[in-house]
Amino acid sequence: MPKIPRSSDNDYTHDMSQTRREFIARETGTQLNHLGHYSIPPETLSGNIENFAGVAQVPIGFAGPMLVNGEHAKGEFYVPMATTEGTLTASYSRGMRLTREAGGITTTVIDDAMQRAPMFAFSNAREALAFGKWVEQNFEAIKRACDSTTSVGKLRDIEQYAASKLRWLRFNFTCGDAAGQNMVSKATKAGCEWIQANYPGAIEHFVLAANLDTDKKHSHLNSLHTRGKRVVAEVTLPKQLMTDIMHCPPEALFKQRQYSNMGALMAGSVNNGAHFANGITAMFIACGQDVANVAESSAGFTYAEITPNGDYYFSVTIPSLIVATYGGGTGLATQNECLRVLGCTQRGSVNKFAEIVAATVLCGDLSLGSAVVADEWVSSHERLGRNR
Amino acid sequence: MPKIPRSSDNDYTHDMSQTRREFIARETGTQLNHLGHYSIPPETLSGNIENFAGVAQVPIGFAGPMLVNGEHAKGEFYVPMATTEGTLTASYSRGMRLTREAGGITTTVIDDAMQRAPMFAFSNAREALAFGKWVEQNFEAIKRACDSTTSVGKLRDIEQYAASKLRWLRFNFTCGDAAGQNMVSKATKAGCEWIQANYPGAIEHFVLAANLDTDKKHSHLNSLHTRGKRVVAEVTLPKQLMTDIMHCPPEALFKQRQYSNMGALMAGSVNNGAHFANGITAMFIACGQDVANVAESSAGFTYAEITPNGDYYFSVTIPSLIVATYGGGTGLATQNECLRVLGCTQRGSVNKFAEIVAATVLCGDLSLGSAVVADEWVSSHERLGRNR
Amino acid sequence: MPKIPRSSDNDYTHDMSQTRREFIARETGTQLNHLGHYSIPPETLSGNIENFAGVAQVPIGFAGPMLVNGEHAKGEFYVPMATTEGTLTASYSRGMRLTREAGGITTTVIDDAMQRAPMFAFSNAREALAFGKWVEQNFEAIKRACDSTTSVGKLRDIEQYAASKLRWLRFNFTCGDAAGQNMVSKATKAGCEWIQANYPGAIEHFVLAANLDTDKKHSHLNSLHTRGKRVVAEVTLPKQLMTDIMHCPPEALFKQRQYSNMGALMAGSVNNGAHFANGITAMFIACGQDVANVAESSAGFTYAEITPNGDYYFSVTIPSLIVATYGGGTGLATQNECLRVLGCTQRGSVNKFAEIVAATVLCGDLSLGSAVVADEWVSSHERLGRNR
Amino acid sequence: MPKIPRSSDNDYTHDMSQTRREFIARETGTQLNHLGHYSIPPETLSGNIENFAGVAQVPIGFAGPMLVNGEHAKGEFYVPMATTEGTLTASYSRGMRLTREAGGITTTVIDDAMQRAPMFAFSNAREALAFGKWVEQNFEAIKRACDSTTSVGKLRDIEQYAASKLRWLRFNFTCGDAAGQNMVSKATKAGCEWIQANYPGAIEHFVLAANLDTDKKHSHLNSLHTRGKRVVAEVTLPKQLMTDIMHCPPEALFKQRQYSNMGALMAGSVNNGAHFANGITAMFIACGQDVANVAESSAGFTYAEITPNGDYYFSVTIPSLIVATYGGGTGLATQNECLRVLGCTQRGSVNKFAEIVAATVLCGDLSLGSAVVADEWVSSHERLGRNR
Repeated sequence: MPKIPRSSDNDYTHDMSQTRREFIARETGTQLNHLGHYSIPPETLSGNIENFAGVAQVPIGFAGPMLVNGEHAKGEFYVPMATTEGTLTASYSRGMRLTREAGGITTTVIDDAMQRAPMFAFSNAREALAFGKWVEQNFEAIKRACDSTTSVGKLRDIEQYAASKLRWLRFNFTCGDAAGQNMVSKATKAGCEWIQANYPGAIEHFVLAANLDTDKKHSHLNSLHTRGKRVVAEVTLPKQLMTDIMHCPPEALFKQRQYSNMGALMAGSVNNGAHFANGITAMFIACGQDVANVAESSAGFTYAEITPNGDYYFSVTIPSLIVATYGGGTGLATQNECLRVLGCTQRGSVNKFAEIVAATVLCGDLSLGSAVVADEWVSSHERLGRNR
Repeated sequence: MPKIPRSSDNDYTHDMSQTRREFIARETGTQLNHLGHYSIPPETLSGNIENFAGVAQVPIGFAGPMLVNGEHAKGEFYVPMATTEGTLTASYSRGMRLTREAGGITTTVIDDAMQRAPMFAFSNAREALAFGKWVEQNFEAIKRACDSTTSVGKLRDIEQYAASKLRWLRFNFTCGDAAGQNMVSKATKAGCEWIQANYPGAIEHFVLAANLDTDKKHSHLNSLHTRGKRVVAEVTLPKQLMTDIMHCPPEALFKQRQYSNMGALMAGSVNNGAHFANGITAMFIACGQDVANVAESSAGFTYAEITPNGDYYFSVTIPSLIVATYGGGTGLATQNECLRVLGCTQRGSVNKFAEIVAATVLCGDLSLGSAVVADEWVSSHERLGRNR
Repeated sequence: MPKIPRSSDNDYTHDMSQTRREFIARETGTQLNHLGHYSIPPETLSGNIENFAGVAQVPIGFAGPMLVNGEHAKGEFYVPMATTEGTLTASYSRGMRLTREAGGITTTVIDDAMQRAPMFAFSNAREALAFGKWVEQNFEAIKRACDSTTSVGKLRDIEQYAASKLRWLRFNFTCGDAAGQNMVSKATKAGCEWIQANYPGAIEHFVLAANLDTDKKHSHLNSLHTRGKRVVAEVTLPKQLMTDIMHCPPEALFKQRQYSNMGALMAGSVNNGAHFANGITAMFIACGQDVANVAESSAGFTYAEITPNGDYYFSVTIPSLIVATYGGGTGLATQNECLRVLGCTQRGSVNKFAEIVAATVLCGDLSLGSAVVADEWVSSHERLGRNR
Repeated sequence: MPKIPRSSDNDYTHDMSQTRREFIARETGTQLNHLGHYSIPPETLSGNIENFAGVAQVPIGFAGPMLVNGEHAKGEFYVPMATTEGTLTASYSRGMRLTREAGGITTTVIDDAMQRAPMFAFSNAREALAFGKWVEQNFEAIKRACDSTTSVGKLRDIEQYAASKLRWLRFNFTCGDAAGQNMVSKATKAGCEWIQANYPGAIEHFVLAANLDTDKKHSHLNSLHTRGKRVVAEVTLPKQLMTDIMHCPPEALFKQRQYSNMGALMAGSVNNGAHFANGITAMFIACGQDVANVAESSAGFTYAEITPNGDYYFSVTIPSLIVATYGGGTGLATQNECLRVLGCTQRGSVNKFAEIVAATVLCGDLSLGSAVVADEWVSSHERLGRNR
């Protein structure tokens, strides 16, 4: 089969987009009536995609209003969710109604770090250890080398992990409103070049990444030490409210939590909650996030208590929520509109966005959890979803 | 803030979509010029979304052609990828060029199961054990109850997992071309109703799910026992070809594999490969999959060998690839077009689609892995991506 | 340094033991006054050790009496514990007193399997899959080959695990009163020889073990699927009793359980209980078990509930308790006496012993858990232990 | 059944030991001829055991000589191993012969920390975060409070782990020659008392431990961040030597390593090596260590390379080796003799002992690994062991 057409001149035009659609249609015998229906100016896409040929139209529904009492997100929000899964938006909305009537959701970003973890090999473990000490002693110089590559990213600290004669340096950066994966790769590379130029000992091998970051995949390390934002959303739900809206008293939901904790522990699950991934994914698609980060961002912890007066304290912790309000896909046409709906396009909005995502996740987990307990779950899928 | 408008009559119309956009625009003071630009007929969306108000336009580029020697996917494919991450499509294309020149990628679906795992509690472990034996003895009747709810899903077997006085039954189904999460929930519910009606002993508590499935989150259990399709993609790359196209001899890539295996093991990563999630996510968005399943589908195993004559055998295994060619979002406008480009809309196409995804993942991991080794990774992001 | 003396004639004599002690004493300039103080007849040790030179004297204390309502262990037991850790025996005794006053501990062996997991490599995943199906079809013949090597071991089933072109067969055996690791190695080897002789396809590589068993190390797989005995011990403790004996009401202990569950989940711990390993190790040393199996046997699950009338239901599940009442060190002098004290030397005693171990573990976890909550933990170590 | 006899006067006498044996013998109808055969003075056991009634006689064999080129362990050692598993001592000796002929084993202690991880709960996550910052700011005062309780232990740093409204402080201490679990419990308790007395905010709940330490059980956290000593042992084995002594060329062993890495990754094993636990357990029993720590100490990493000239680089990393040369059981009769044989009883010997253990583990893994590859494994068990 022939190569996909590219323009030597300007590849990001309506013409090239159409040329490619016609090419694909011809080569595969497929009519493409919808792919080309878009309003994004192609010239805005040069940093976002290659071989641009149209768009996926992913349905967006709004959930809410959701009431958030965050440090950064304060007030009520209509939450854009891009999904093709029936019941999802309705279910999140139900949780939003509940938490709103309970006075809203408290959200806090409790940690913030994006990383790249280069690996250095030595002739033996003793030399790797000596190198580790040298890196500690030369942190300031390494930081200067890293930070010189970016006006936004700041090297926070370097963790060290060691096995055999290998030593991984986990460079932790803050990255402003960007998610920062590329920023930290470039900065870490500069830091490592300084190290290689200045380390007096012999480095047997160096590589910028060797699976300790860990990028685009969950790791226990990330859940312990944060990748992106570590966000907590919390709410205390009056007993009566739960019975009225969710048809599920606190005791029943708490009992289910015990079972779910055991299930998660036994399964070796990376999340003892219900379905963080659903809300995160729908918001990520709508708001121009790097959706592949669902791999890391879907991990998390759920913790609940029955308060002394019988109410239900419920919280979700997302240890590696990778979000941005600048860069990547955040500036694209529909994506930017969705961020604007949330008031998350000004400088310094990334923590606000993180808090809204976490609050949304909490609503979804409350809603699904209650539905499972109240045995309304399968039937709501039959009513609203396609049930396949 | 007021409630989002809903129509008591027909909620899936252009009017209602516009009413909601105007409502959101007014309430949040945001101009929405792009969200409403879509060609999907709203009336097709009633099983896919609630509060429909427009679409996310996610840029699609095509990668390829990719040559696949699968059991189901045979021949060359142009792969639609919906993403906002610069360099991604280009990088996957590079891997596709390499593997095509090497004679193509062998793909095999080696397992297939979708599950729901209800939990039963008893007064003690001995009764839970007795129940487990009874379930084994009554498998055929339980299967009849399950299978009666669906013309497509077939109960394959029931695994049992036990701790304390609790027993989880993991119902494994095959689901035809559907992903099947809802299908198996409904079928499992019917099976459990039969169990509850017929079990002669006392069941203290029953719930349809308690985190052993595990749905919308990775678990070690899923990687061991498959959720969705378990797919392997393999290729043997001649030494010369790797040096020519990837600027990276087999020995260098293999050495990096050793480091990456150690990094993954130490980090507690759910994937010792590079970035399965990128290709999977881009294809999932383009092709109408439930994108939240990236949580599960991004886990996996990479295995490599240097062959006796110095070539590079490379494989990826995706243990929980949750895919569909029917149901969910697969019938939507652009999504269906993308599936048609891949020839995956006829009945019985799901394994073909699974194989194409796995082959794509292999190409991406080869490309990124080589770039890291050849130190071309950061610079390609600077050239093609936004570098934020 | 010279080689350790060996006798070409009979290596298991008092003379050889003494010759070696003198040799070690001379070569290292160490006086050895105690190592040679033993009453085991050296001639009984030929299957247990090489280069025999004396014994470790590990102090034994008895805990109890402990009341067990098992399927196999019925009645009261004095439990021998070999340890050098002060407070341990006293702490377990405290838990035994509590559970005895509560009516005793219910114990159940809910699964039983010892395994060896050979690996077969093929030219690609498709051939590995075909092999897997052939193994299923030929199970009876493989079983005959396995079972012919042992009068005790019985092949129960063969699980299959697959990645890339590799396929692991996990042979599960029951092994009577033996722990069975050697028995199943030999039997599995015979099964694999039959496979290699009869499989019509090409096997690229075979090896009897490749870390999927997993032997002498914990794995999530073992916790899911049992290695050795899977045993549950349970008790319901009246509220008043807990307050009286443990100075710790059920609510306080249950609250601590919530924190401990979260801690274990976040730490990635293989056990959400307190210190299964302490009781298991002390009994393993006393009773001639293979103590290295503490690596696997120390994993487990703790599950608790507050009953409707305010009592405390508490359970421990040990998923991979590897125990024997025949073979290994069970016949040695002091070890056999300890087994006899427990009434575990007759044929068919292994499940009885497993239940006693699990009941002991439960007592220890109750005792330590309560001490932590009642803040008596550090002080009891100061009173009874060496506090180092 | 009656209570076990205790003396109100002096419980650690030959008389009381005998009284208890007679009591147990009478109550259980068991003759106890061997338990009472010991040479330990009972009066030395008051900090090591309660209800002392005799000893377990665990056979000791010596392996070696083993050549170690450590930072602390230099020269040749005869290694005492207390075990009842036939072939074990012989197998380790084989690995010692191999590594000795290769010039010896390089060992390095690359990290050192013993910890206790108290948990503090707050009214919400924001307060928990504020507390965390306060702890950072008040580190020196907390350290003073901790270190005042011990002349040996030194608080090194406090890691923080957070989920929901909970915050765990992981206090890392160095503990001289002691293992230090009790020392750090006491010191951490003092630190927490200072915190509670001085923290200006409201602490909802405090507990000294909640499963994040993690004590007496493996956790991923411990493997990442060390509990006890993190030790590496390394060796490079000439190709010819491996073939001559192990009948196993480097390529074959390296191939097996690839399979074993995949097996461990898929099984979710805490160790990708062969059987660290065997050597560690045997040395722990012989040398008066807290054997229950095998739960943590048996985890680890194995890393291998084929060098450019075809030799075999092999290493083991034990991330949580919990050892002592002072305190616990190290001063007991036979245990102290074994430590003296290794030259590990002087002050400051603990790292020497750690290195010897790691070197021993390396020898055992080399020996078993080679035997599996050369298919000599099952047959050696048949020859030397009891094969049950």
